[in-house]
Amino acid sequence: MPERRLLILGAGFGGVFAAKRLRRRLPGDVAIEIVDDNNYFVFQPLLPEVAGGSVNVADAVVPLRSLLPGVTIREATILGIDLVERRVEVQQGMRGTLHVLACDHLVIALGQTVDLRRYPGLGEHALRMKDLADAFRLRNHVIDCLEQADIAADPELKRRLLTFVVVGGGLSGVETVGEIHDMIARALTFYPRINRRSVRMLLVEYQPRILPEVADGLAEYAARRLSRRGIEVITGVGVKSASRDAIELTDGRVVDAMTVVATVGNGPSPLVESLPVDRRRGRIVADRHLRVPGYEGVWTLGDAAWVPAGRDDEAATPPTAQAAVQQAEVLAANIQAATGGGALAAFEYRRKGQLASLGGRRGVADVYGFELSGFFAWVMWRLFYLVMLPGFATKVRVAVDWMLDALFPRNLVQIQQPSPQAVRKQRFRAGDVVYERGEVAGPLYLVVEGRLRRTSPGEEEAVLETGSLFGDGALRGERLRRATVTALENSYCLALERADLELLAGHLERLGLCLAGSGLGEPASEAQRGRPG
Amino acid sequence: MPERRLLILGAGFGGVFAAKRLRRRLPGDVAIEIVDDNNYFVFQPLLPEVAGGSVNVADAVVPLRSLLPGVTIREATILGIDLVERRVEVQQGMRGTLHVLACDHLVIALGQTVDLRRYPGLGEHALRMKDLADAFRLRNHVIDCLEQADIAADPELKRRLLTFVVVGGGLSGVETVGEIHDMIARALTFYPRINRRSVRMLLVEYQPRILPEVADGLAEYAARRLSRRGIEVITGVGVKSASRDAIELTDGRVVDAMTVVATVGNGPSPLVESLPVDRRRGRIVADRHLRVPGYEGVWTLGDAAWVPAGRDDEAATPPTAQAAVQQAEVLAANIQAATGGGALAAFEYRRKGQLASLGGRRGVADVYGFELSGFFAWVMWRLFYLVMLPGFATKVRVAVDWMLDALFPRNLVQIQQPSPQAVRKQRFRAGDVVYERGEVAGPLYLVVEGRLRRTSPGEEEAVLETGSLFGDGALRGERLRRATVTALENSYCLALERADLELLAGHLERLGLCLAGSGLGEPASEAQRGRPG
Repeated sequence: MPERRLLILGAGFGGVFAAKRLRRRLPGDVAIEIVDDNNYFVFQPLLPEVAGGSVNVADAVVPLRSLLPGVTIREATILGIDLVERRVEVQQGMRGTLHVLACDHLVIALGQTVDLRRYPGLGEHALRMKDLADAFRLRNHVIDCLEQADIAADPELKRRLLTFVVVGGGLSGVETVGEIHDMIARALTFYPRINRRSVRMLLVEYQPRILPEVADGLAEYAARRLSRRGIEVITGVGVKSASRDAIELTDGRVVDAMTVVATVGNGPSPLVESLPVDRRRGRIVADRHLRVPGYEGVWTLGDAAWVPAGRDDEAATPPTAQAAVQQAEVLAANIQAATGGGALAAFEYRRKGQLASLGGRRGVADVYGFELSGFFAWVMWRLFYLVMLPGFATKVRVAVDWMLDALFPRNLVQIQQPSPQAVRKQRFRAGDVVYERGEVAGPLYLVVEGRLRRTSPGEEEAVLETGSLFGDGALRGERLRRATVTALENSYCLALERADLELLAGHLERLGLCLAGSGLGEPASEAQRGRPG
Repeated sequence: MPERRLLILGAGFGGVFAAKRLRRRLPGDVAIEIVDDNNYFVFQPLLPEVAGGSVNVADAVVPLRSLLPGVTIREATILGIDLVERRVEVQQGMRGTLHVLACDHLVIALGQTVDLRRYPGLGEHALRMKDLADAFRLRNHVIDCLEQADIAADPELKRRLLTFVVVGGGLSGVETVGEIHDMIARALTFYPRINRRSVRMLLVEYQPRILPEVADGLAEYAARRLSRRGIEVITGVGVKSASRDAIELTDGRVVDAMTVVATVGNGPSPLVESLPVDRRRGRIVADRHLRVPGYEGVWTLGDAAWVPAGRDDEAATPPTAQAAVQQAEVLAANIQAATGGGALAAFEYRRKGQLASLGGRRGVADVYGFELSGFFAWVMWRLFYLVMLPGFATKVRVAVDWMLDALFPRNLVQIQQPSPQAVRKQRFRAGDVVYERGEVAGPLYLVVEGRLRRTSPGEEEAVLETGSLFGDGALRGERLRRATVTALENSYCLALERADLELLAGHLERLGLCLAGSGLGEPASEAQRGRPG
């Protein structure tokens, strides 16, 4: 019995819709399995609404198990793919057990990831808008900024806390800035010490216009609309770099901001990058039947795939949800043909249009050639996505969220999340203050690159260079910073959380294990260690 | 102008209701400020429903700013309290700026925290049910167990993943076990490879009966009801210790379980412990007017306070929400009297009764002497808490959650959260396997206490003692564990996350900074380092 097992990697639009179509087309005894890090499908178009708080965090996603009956769901991390043998290594469970999954047909639907390496500091400091956790984090971060700004005594700090920069004027960037603006505008009633005019929002786009996804006129309307609501729309300007407290633009402007959201930098996932296949712009080159040339039984679709849009092979299908869904249909038909016999169909992309929400109950719609903007376009946006949302329960939940949001103040609960890493890389621009004397002692820093200056009254000034440790007073029981540290040039530091170090340091001495030369094991003055030996 | 500033520490039932009552009683020019780590008030009775997924995570809490108009909200961490000067040091903001808040009246409403130190391993491995983050974490953890059990190949592991232990048969424990049982029972439809009978749930209570909060008959009904639904109710047995994979009871039983929830071990917060006041059972002794003796203008209420329940000074008010709310009324009147003139009122506790939900649409109610159990008690429970929930918007949101929950399958989206700490202490019982050969390499371990054995085919067996590092192959690029490590006796290890170490280790060498003797800096064989030099 050949062709008995089908494996789909990735549960984005491509993977999920392919699984759905395949389950409908193939006989029940063909096993279909889908592997993803998460047990849910993210409905990307609603992520900005999650960030803005008008949709509940769990409602912009659909559990795969209720979405794909008859399909095996495996929540696991993919470690490696063997295209020749069609074997996939995954790691699953709390202990990370290794499993090898073999299959007769392999569908690669791994999408894209965010790659911000070309902008120094942006990867370290920008928030993202790629998956559910990002949207949830952004929402909590914005509320945190409002909370802190409301009680901040320092006007400089307050200004920084109330400046919000969204990088990227595409669909995701525009909807994100719009939704966050909405949330803040409605929230301010509850923050009596924040002046509405002290909130600053910027949308930065490298191209000369925003929203490349829609017609010129609509994009102009969108830019006007955002500007009228007080959002600074900056086009033709890119990002140069970012640091913990600011972002630098290509025109030389430096904007002090505690919130930078990056919706740019889509790139291939490391897994796709590691595959021995032809790639264009990081995407796996597929033929018009969605096969990966040279590998029997291997298919690809969605953002991960470079698929010719039509007969003109030079243009690729855009990396959008609608393209992935169209491809899923053709892919399912072709796998059915390949297993059951029949001719393969050729994929041809048909652009159906685009809708975008601008916040403030306005939107733009560019559908089948019709252009519409304003309130009705926004209503159309909502209705369209409500129809598109998979699963009746999810539709009802989102509709209810919208209804409640129209009736009541937005929920401003800040759910505090632990920092995802104990060791974080941070970037400081020349002149940036890492910390100030008198602040409560927080993390310990290790200089990775650059030079910083440490000043303290009554002590000699010290220059901290690569390899220097600073801020370790806390480990010796100091509650407050005794010195001020300022970057002399653009620098990178590793910030090490105090709680983790304390847990470790308490054992280091006793265990005869010490960070040699760093003095972490035994007490020593901070200045001493300012100069690498 | 005296008595101009009032500071409330802690936004639990005591703090929030005191703020509300005080704002109503005092003239508008008296500033009232409340300080808490979170910007919301947690409605504790609904936490089990958040854990079970029938109430949305953001709906069991109410933002303080909408709940307390006219009160200044400060989201900050309290560092120190000076009772004589009535000055409070707080740390706020992303950078941890220090602020000192002075006031004329200080209200200490800091509640209690969880202290599991007397049970080895329980603090390290048990989930809690104290605040919103705990409930959210438990929900995601249970879904994770189901996901992993569904695809687990090893029957032993599957059994462990499907065993859920709740420690503590009080209100919180009973409601938690009931809600989790509900969630799992409804979820299993979507997990085709999990047999309903392989799910095991235990409720462990040290006292001879559960639910001390209600009358005997009702507690018996509750125990019967839980048992009939397949929950093992174990009374008269306490917890001895816990490890990563199991829990040990005082009767010698060892239950293998990946999920242990501790609802026991309430103790004073470290801040309360540090105050120079009289304490009984860790609570601040107050007089019947809710003043802290010896300190002018300092008041206390709620779980943090030991307040005589009535004329008989030997009994304290129980640490419950209803007691805190009753105290808030007296406290507000007394502060008004103290500032405006008038006699202080004496607090007298009046028990109104208790309601408990058992899951499965059953409950018990013991209200004003009336005892009721079953479906109507459960409906009463829901209605009562809906009425009690502060804020109209919150009431509607929770009512809608319950309605949707009755109509649709429960949302099984697992929101993955980063581990709160990069360095975690773990406990292993003699015989426990830390990891097995062939598993995907995960964290690096440092033995803190105990002895473990490392075995690998073709290699000499090594004994790992205090100070040994193991599992560091991953830092040298090994993808899979080459050896199996088993605890020879009860041991503690520190687990260090690989990603953090890699980030750090990549710089250690270059910086001339190395973990001397540990070999972390330079490659060396794992066996070598198994024996501490």
